[in-house]
Amino acid sequence: MAGNIIGKIIRLTTFGESHGIAIGGVLEGLPSGLRIDMDFVQEQLNKRRPGQSTIVTSRDELDKVEFLSGIKDGITLGSPIGYIIRNKDVRSKDYNDISNVFRPSHADYTYASKYGLREEAGGGRSSARETVSRVVAGALTQIFLTHFNITIKAYVSRVGEVVIRKGYKELDLSIIEESMVRCPDQLTSDAMIDLITKTKEEGDSLGGEICCIISNPPVGLGEPVFNKLNADLGHAILGINAVKGFEFGSGFQSAHMKGSEHNDLFKVEDKKVGTITNNSGGIQGGLSNGEDIYFKAAFKPVSTIMQDQETIDLDGNQITLKSKGRHDVCVVPRAVPIIESMAALVVADHILQNRTASMSDF
Amino acid sequence: MAGNIIGKIIRLTTFGESHGIAIGGVLEGLPSGLRIDMDFVQEQLNKRRPGQSTIVTSRDELDKVEFLSGIKDGITLGSPIGYIIRNKDVRSKDYNDISNVFRPSHADYTYASKYGLREEAGGGRSSARETVSRVVAGALTQIFLTHFNITIKAYVSRVGEVVIRKGYKELDLSIIEESMVRCPDQLTSDAMIDLITKTKEEGDSLGGEICCIISNPPVGLGEPVFNKLNADLGHAILGINAVKGFEFGSGFQSAHMKGSEHNDLFKVEDKKVGTITNNSGGIQGGLSNGEDIYFKAAFKPVSTIMQDQETIDLDGNQITLKSKGRHDVCVVPRAVPIIESMAALVVADHILQNRTASMSDF
Amino acid sequence: MAGNIIGKIIRLTTFGESHGIAIGGVLEGLPSGLRIDMDFVQEQLNKRRPGQSTIVTSRDELDKVEFLSGIKDGITLGSPIGYIIRNKDVRSKDYNDISNVFRPSHADYTYASKYGLREEAGGGRSSARETVSRVVAGALTQIFLTHFNITIKAYVSRVGEVVIRKGYKELDLSIIEESMVRCPDQLTSDAMIDLITKTKEEGDSLGGEICCIISNPPVGLGEPVFNKLNADLGHAILGINAVKGFEFGSGFQSAHMKGSEHNDLFKVEDKKVGTITNNSGGIQGGLSNGEDIYFKAAFKPVSTIMQDQETIDLDGNQITLKSKGRHDVCVVPRAVPIIESMAALVVADHILQNRTASMSDF
Amino acid sequence: MAGNIIGKIIRLTTFGESHGIAIGGVLEGLPSGLRIDMDFVQEQLNKRRPGQSTIVTSRDELDKVEFLSGIKDGITLGSPIGYIIRNKDVRSKDYNDISNVFRPSHADYTYASKYGLREEAGGGRSSARETVSRVVAGALTQIFLTHFNITIKAYVSRVGEVVIRKGYKELDLSIIEESMVRCPDQLTSDAMIDLITKTKEEGDSLGGEICCIISNPPVGLGEPVFNKLNADLGHAILGINAVKGFEFGSGFQSAHMKGSEHNDLFKVEDKKVGTITNNSGGIQGGLSNGEDIYFKAAFKPVSTIMQDQETIDLDGNQITLKSKGRHDVCVVPRAVPIIESMAALVVADHILQNRTASMSDF
Repeated sequence: MAGNIIGKIIRLTTFGESHGIAIGGVLEGLPSGLRIDMDFVQEQLNKRRPGQSTIVTSRDELDKVEFLSGIKDGITLGSPIGYIIRNKDVRSKDYNDISNVFRPSHADYTYASKYGLREEAGGGRSSARETVSRVVAGALTQIFLTHFNITIKAYVSRVGEVVIRKGYKELDLSIIEESMVRCPDQLTSDAMIDLITKTKEEGDSLGGEICCIISNPPVGLGEPVFNKLNADLGHAILGINAVKGFEFGSGFQSAHMKGSEHNDLFKVEDKKVGTITNNSGGIQGGLSNGEDIYFKAAFKPVSTIMQDQETIDLDGNQITLKSKGRHDVCVVPRAVPIIESMAALVVADHILQNRTASMSDF
Repeated sequence: MAGNIIGKIIRLTTFGESHGIAIGGVLEGLPSGLRIDMDFVQEQLNKRRPGQSTIVTSRDELDKVEFLSGIKDGITLGSPIGYIIRNKDVRSKDYNDISNVFRPSHADYTYASKYGLREEAGGGRSSARETVSRVVAGALTQIFLTHFNITIKAYVSRVGEVVIRKGYKELDLSIIEESMVRCPDQLTSDAMIDLITKTKEEGDSLGGEICCIISNPPVGLGEPVFNKLNADLGHAILGINAVKGFEFGSGFQSAHMKGSEHNDLFKVEDKKVGTITNNSGGIQGGLSNGEDIYFKAAFKPVSTIMQDQETIDLDGNQITLKSKGRHDVCVVPRAVPIIESMAALVVADHILQNRTASMSDF
Repeated sequence: MAGNIIGKIIRLTTFGESHGIAIGGVLEGLPSGLRIDMDFVQEQLNKRRPGQSTIVTSRDELDKVEFLSGIKDGITLGSPIGYIIRNKDVRSKDYNDISNVFRPSHADYTYASKYGLREEAGGGRSSARETVSRVVAGALTQIFLTHFNITIKAYVSRVGEVVIRKGYKELDLSIIEESMVRCPDQLTSDAMIDLITKTKEEGDSLGGEICCIISNPPVGLGEPVFNKLNADLGHAILGINAVKGFEFGSGFQSAHMKGSEHNDLFKVEDKKVGTITNNSGGIQGGLSNGEDIYFKAAFKPVSTIMQDQETIDLDGNQITLKSKGRHDVCVVPRAVPIIESMAALVVADHILQNRTASMSDF
Repeated sequence: MAGNIIGKIIRLTTFGESHGIAIGGVLEGLPSGLRIDMDFVQEQLNKRRPGQSTIVTSRDELDKVEFLSGIKDGITLGSPIGYIIRNKDVRSKDYNDISNVFRPSHADYTYASKYGLREEAGGGRSSARETVSRVVAGALTQIFLTHFNITIKAYVSRVGEVVIRKGYKELDLSIIEESMVRCPDQLTSDAMIDLITKTKEEGDSLGGEICCIISNPPVGLGEPVFNKLNADLGHAILGINAVKGFEFGSGFQSAHMKGSEHNDLFKVEDKKVGTITNNSGGIQGGLSNGEDIYFKAAFKPVSTIMQDQETIDLDGNQITLKSKGRHDVCVVPRAVPIIESMAALVVADHILQNRTASMSDF
């Protein structure tokens, strides 16, 4: 079955294995006549790139995208935008040692069971390398969203036990990039870096969380009943490697609350309807209500650790795995542009879907 | 845009407003020759039904399904299964008072903005009444899954601050139905009922959580990269009314953990590969690994409370809302069969999708 | 696999077997606020209805549609429109004799092979009775199209060897309904009726053709490259029972022509671009060009004939089939509203799809 | 809206403009473990290639495919197969003269109207150059079909008024490639070549027809009611550039026939059910019945002719167009592999869709 396509009008198809020739994608549905800021695309790719700082894996992939179609002289044509990112740094030898081993909590065993072959080293299609094509499409889509004054910003709110205690409204989201871990709170950022450094020395890895805010959405995005905006956002975010949980607005905390605490009362300011609180996370009844949309994603710790682990080989024999290679201790700093990208794809798709809801739209 | 269809091979289309003539659905993709246990379908409907116990709303809807096609003499034909549940107890007058009011944290405002009309009283399509059609389809699908020895069981693990402290392996899931709140732990169940009763007296409402366990899944369900099993489960669950969060396996707790703690080491027992722990929640790399799949959903407190609330009318004027009518204090006990149904639809769909992954399948 | 859904934004799901309880459908995507002319819906149903005249089958099905959702007080709500048509005249006994026989050129053998069971008498889902749900959806969609001043008219252009020699521009399409066979040319109509009467006496059946004209389409409908307007129209029309061929514009005749004959030269009248000829059938490069869209569908003769035929039973034994029951000699007069309906669904879907092609649409 | 994807399980996404950097595609759904015969892929590309013989355009495009993913060491991985064909021979200057002209019966006017820009010279996405990506995917799929002993063969049956008078059973399909026009009848082939040569001298172009035969299909392919095998075949074929009509089996001729002539009576040979005649074209009730599936497509004459034509420019002024450049007089010889490819994609997709129809499949 085919699972490499997401979206309905803004629709992304991706392909490419981690250690194959190239990763790529085809993005449909962006209207013609949109000017593409190529620098922004590269910036987003750079945020995802390995080797960008001392705390991430030193695999040095250039991640330079080549656009093959759909854009001419920097303007979209309305035709599908095909693009590829060649895999420059294919050191399969790092992976030769593990080619007959099932690494714990990786996709090795499940992929081998499903497809009947141990995919090439590095995880093939299951590697997070795949997400580079999402970032290209996401960046293009974010550019489209600027025409609606919609911005999408994500930041790291937790690394292991180090957590930001402030809500996003108390933070200055313009300084995210000043932090190596993409945490817009200086003290927390420092503590995160310390924890990552220390954990790296232990040969261990860390989980974390990312918060994402979609500012200035229009009212009415979302298609009942199965394509509620929150459902489609959750789908897109939960499809990112290592994500184990998704919540929006008050999220899991809402389960602790009473209706009288949780309900967002209306206010009218300058003839514009809004809510005083925003426990709804900008989505009510599955539709955006015009308030900020915000959500959080939980990432599990990286499976590859530099400690000996008991595991099995392809024949089911117990063996001890000693990992080598270059791996992140914590993926969340690099996952920030991926989260933004998936959110952008969903929001833009819903903007296009939302143009024919009422006869007054014609 | 059209959002009333879910699934690819097992595919459900639903229709019907809360206070319209009927709720219904069309379920495609169940193979021909499947014997339907109609009693099981009714049992699942009864679990969702209002008026089933003293702690839920007293709206007395019979929720008797009429199958119109696709089943003959209790056996599926392979053609789409159309069915309806007529709305028996349409008391629009309870809602007349609120027809020109936007209730806080309801879908009133967002639906009115999107569709340009204040839908009929009771919320129309946004009401959880809609989920009755999901339960029918889910029950049919659960029957299909029994042919693979797959069972799906959900229970209430939290109501407000009352929470079950045990994991699902420590609980006896066969006694869920003995509890009015569907909590398979006697003491916790009693505390939940007490809390609900007390909160009802206060005219307030409560959030909660539901745990769901999919037992005995095959290895390899899930379609990379956008239709990972967890992504499709999340999508289906987050599309249920009032759900604010979804996590599987270690979920949000995984963000606190280190790789050395989180990794699920393999074991081989009776030549069958398994894992010693199950932080993965039965899904690795987006594919089922044969262990139990388990996930949790967070529900916000019911928006309708029996307390005065400040809100606005259609013209934006501030008014005080005094709710009437029959409403649940906490929806999670009745949401149990809905969670099971959505999980069943996703798992069954993926079983059918997973039949052509490898040439060895032919 | 699931094949009971057509369309992307205007999306129709159907269900129901010929001799089951009801035929029905769910139509998504019509905007809210559309006023439905119920008389028009019934008129279209009446055109498809058996027993409407002396030349069609005398099965007297009332074909009264019951709308269950999506419409209130005659206005669409924007939610899915669910509806059913109950099967009133279920005379299974007419079919008992053939329940263990494979009728030549019917779907009996192929359905039995695929689904592993000889579906109930009358063909179940393969019967053209199924198309009643298409006519309801098509009528609703035609009403939507009137807001764009688009009209869709089909007529019978051939019954067996009797054919209309005039092009549609030479005909008065307002008199289609004055002909029992829906042929807007008096002499041809009479000849068709004579042929049908004579063939009925012979116990034989007849094929035929239907022409359909979509007037006043906007420019630009169609989505390259796989959803060209002609491809989607062809798909919808070829999915109608008994259709064996589809052509648009110059169709098969174009294969005989030279470019210098076939090319439609442009003209500019009142600053409006048009073409002098219309061999393109209103579609160029897969997109509508604003000229009339016209196409033709070929229908094979009805398989059920009142003559003895050699065939086989379920065990493969040769037997002689003597058909009974009430059947049309020629289906094309009753297929006219079905053709119109499928065309309307495709055109309306493409109108909604065509709202986000260019940044100038925003 | 997005129209660059076809299929459900075997699913093809394409991209690329005629005079852009590359044409490409992503093919999903082929099972892992399939050995790819790269020579066959190149052979099919060569059949579509310009410059292959004296009767076709002399544009010399190499059409060498580069596979980027999904295949390793000649074996499919089960992941999406991404590929590109770079456009080598981009002579935009041939097209500069026409960049401000709407050519008659081309896609120039409709694309410009829809996308708000006059796409680059050569037609951009609307050019048949796009079909090169279909041939790659089709060739891969044909290799998959050989595992089921299914072969797909197409040939040219008509060029202008020169037509093959024999049915496909009277022809030797193994000699198709011996004819420069892909007509497996020596005398007819010669007459076609003569006609093409003569018409080229006149600066004119020709239409034609292609017949296609799918041999040895299994019984039961097709998904009622909207995805009948004939409907999906028609959809795929009608989406090919210049196709104006599609018919299967007796096609338009069936409209002339009586049921007693048309019905295909059953026979049982060696315990295998078959039919004596095959007016059904191997499809009954929308499902394959195990007989050969055959269909015909009509192609209009090429729009670009080497004669002066009156047309309009972007401002609506009448001007005279004098075409230059290298163009086919008749496209049908080169369209043969495109027809085969689209047929293969549909048949393979339906084989995968047909694996879960009945409980006996589990």
